[in-house]
Amino acid sequence: MSKILITTVPFGEKSHLPLELLEKANIEYLINPHKTKLTEDQLVDMVPDFDVIIAGTEPITEKVMAQTTKLKLISRVGIGLDGVDLISAKKRGIKVSYTPDAPSPAVAELALGMMLTLLRSVHISNFQMHQGKWQRIFGRRLTEVTVGIIGVGRIGTHLLRCIKGFDTLQILVNDIMPDDELSREFKLEWVTKEQLYKEADIISLHLPLTHLTKNMIRREQLLSMKSDAMIINTSRGGIVNESDLYDVMVEGHLSGVAIDVFEHEPYTGKLAEIERCLLTAHMGSMSIDCRTQMEIEATEEAVRFLAGKPLENEVPQSEYDIQSQG
Amino acid sequence: MSKILITTVPFGEKSHLPLELLEKANIEYLINPHKTKLTEDQLVDMVPDFDVIIAGTEPITEKVMAQTTKLKLISRVGIGLDGVDLISAKKRGIKVSYTPDAPSPAVAELALGMMLTLLRSVHISNFQMHQGKWQRIFGRRLTEVTVGIIGVGRIGTHLLRCIKGFDTLQILVNDIMPDDELSREFKLEWVTKEQLYKEADIISLHLPLTHLTKNMIRREQLLSMKSDAMIINTSRGGIVNESDLYDVMVEGHLSGVAIDVFEHEPYTGKLAEIERCLLTAHMGSMSIDCRTQMEIEATEEAVRFLAGKPLENEVPQSEYDIQSQG
Repeated sequence: MSKILITTVPFGEKSHLPLELLEKANIEYLINPHKTKLTEDQLVDMVPDFDVIIAGTEPITEKVMAQTTKLKLISRVGIGLDGVDLISAKKRGIKVSYTPDAPSPAVAELALGMMLTLLRSVHISNFQMHQGKWQRIFGRRLTEVTVGIIGVGRIGTHLLRCIKGFDTLQILVNDIMPDDELSREFKLEWVTKEQLYKEADIISLHLPLTHLTKNMIRREQLLSMKSDAMIINTSRGGIVNESDLYDVMVEGHLSGVAIDVFEHEPYTGKLAEIERCLLTAHMGSMSIDCRTQMEIEATEEAVRFLAGKPLENEVPQSEYDIQSQG
Repeated sequence: MSKILITTVPFGEKSHLPLELLEKANIEYLINPHKTKLTEDQLVDMVPDFDVIIAGTEPITEKVMAQTTKLKLISRVGIGLDGVDLISAKKRGIKVSYTPDAPSPAVAELALGMMLTLLRSVHISNFQMHQGKWQRIFGRRLTEVTVGIIGVGRIGTHLLRCIKGFDTLQILVNDIMPDDELSREFKLEWVTKEQLYKEADIISLHLPLTHLTKNMIRREQLLSMKSDAMIINTSRGGIVNESDLYDVMVEGHLSGVAIDVFEHEPYTGKLAEIERCLLTAHMGSMSIDCRTQMEIEATEEAVRFLAGKPLENEVPQSEYDIQSQG
């Protein structure tokens, strides 16, 4: 009987459908009993028994994969592949699939909410009001500032769609290549990262974590931004260097940041000392509908695989190429 | 020499243009030295000297106006007229003007930010993260819920425009009369308030405070809403009964509320005890651009008036009719 390890938590909580799919297919499963993101060592202990991992963002490394000859599929709930050593997986004949589309709408809505919150200091006023302090804080409107979006793939594009109603918006975008189709749908200015850092008032990141993006925004890049610029990171921890971010903010740089993703999760670091940091617990994809969709897609992929059917969402070669260049 | 009392604060802080307009016109002015919303008694003491008040939301009542024969114009910075006794003003030959369009974009953007924040419990996660607690909270997407907008005048319409990019949205609206032009521009369902309370997942209020709307949402109306409904009030305090709101939330009703306006401001009440209340300090119009626009328009009106020119933004008769019915 096939066995699946479900490492991502929560799982099957808002909809039982993913678990029902496993039960109907007569597949035994174990949901991560630690109820938090697993470490490499915890994974090393747990993996030998299982044929498939339905995975979150935990580190499924060479060391982890070396513990098992049974493991044949890693089915990621989500889009980011920074946790999976694709090269080791390929070497060992372990297939990897993901759910690249499902998280986009939820992440984009969170990013927009964070933009509007930072622009008006809603998080700061809320702190003050809960402490009995009344201060009417000035803010800016999205329509009046220059928005910078780095990474206009699935999520960045969805964000553009959400802000389509804000008509006079000035939007700078950066990605590996300008996208002509997007430029026809939206009024965009394609710029270099350096120009975007300098000119944008509010910068939202929608990138994968790769060797190209790790520590992409360090002290130098932060200081090249306007002194009252704002950053929103709902993509991956590690892209903005957290220690540099803390330092420049303590020095008074940047008027606000919103961070949903961290280098080490659960996050317990020093950004929590800074009131103008809006912090959330990796909740980008955590809308009931998107999370359920992701869990169902990843589970269906596992069930298909164990029934000997072809995968529908296998990770494309381009993702392997990025990691092998790293 | 004419003298203007500027009661609203802050004033002339982000742009000196309003003060320059007064200086260029050789008009003497005093900015509210208390730096907070004036009470009726404070106004009684201050008004006798002045020809014009450039006003905020403080109570300019019969008692206040009875102190002065000099006062000839109340020029409101903003749209709400609940602070001004229009009937007394008319009786005494005091004209009243306002800036009805300027605040709309800022208020609408704040309301949308609050919607997205409540839907994803961003304010709660931010509290927890700043206390070192990591909990991934499930939320809902705007596109997946039923939005209810009560009052689709200038601000409500601007909010509809902001959310135009969220295409599959289901929107219930209520106003005195259905607006055919709006129904052509947006996909709307015109319903009664009672139906909206029952069916909407997230309710945003964009109404003036009048005898018709005061205490419009009390315990009965709150309890008719879904147990996990959300309310956003960026319009006027007093429309939602604060004590009833506190009571039902303590009892576990409603999943979140965002309140920017209060019956008594500065607010020091008990809603601050509830973590799922997102509270801000009457910041709806406080974007630099909108606030500056409002201050300039109200100042220009005062300058025009004192130069013997006709007013451009005199309050229409319909506003007097509403108050005389009260």
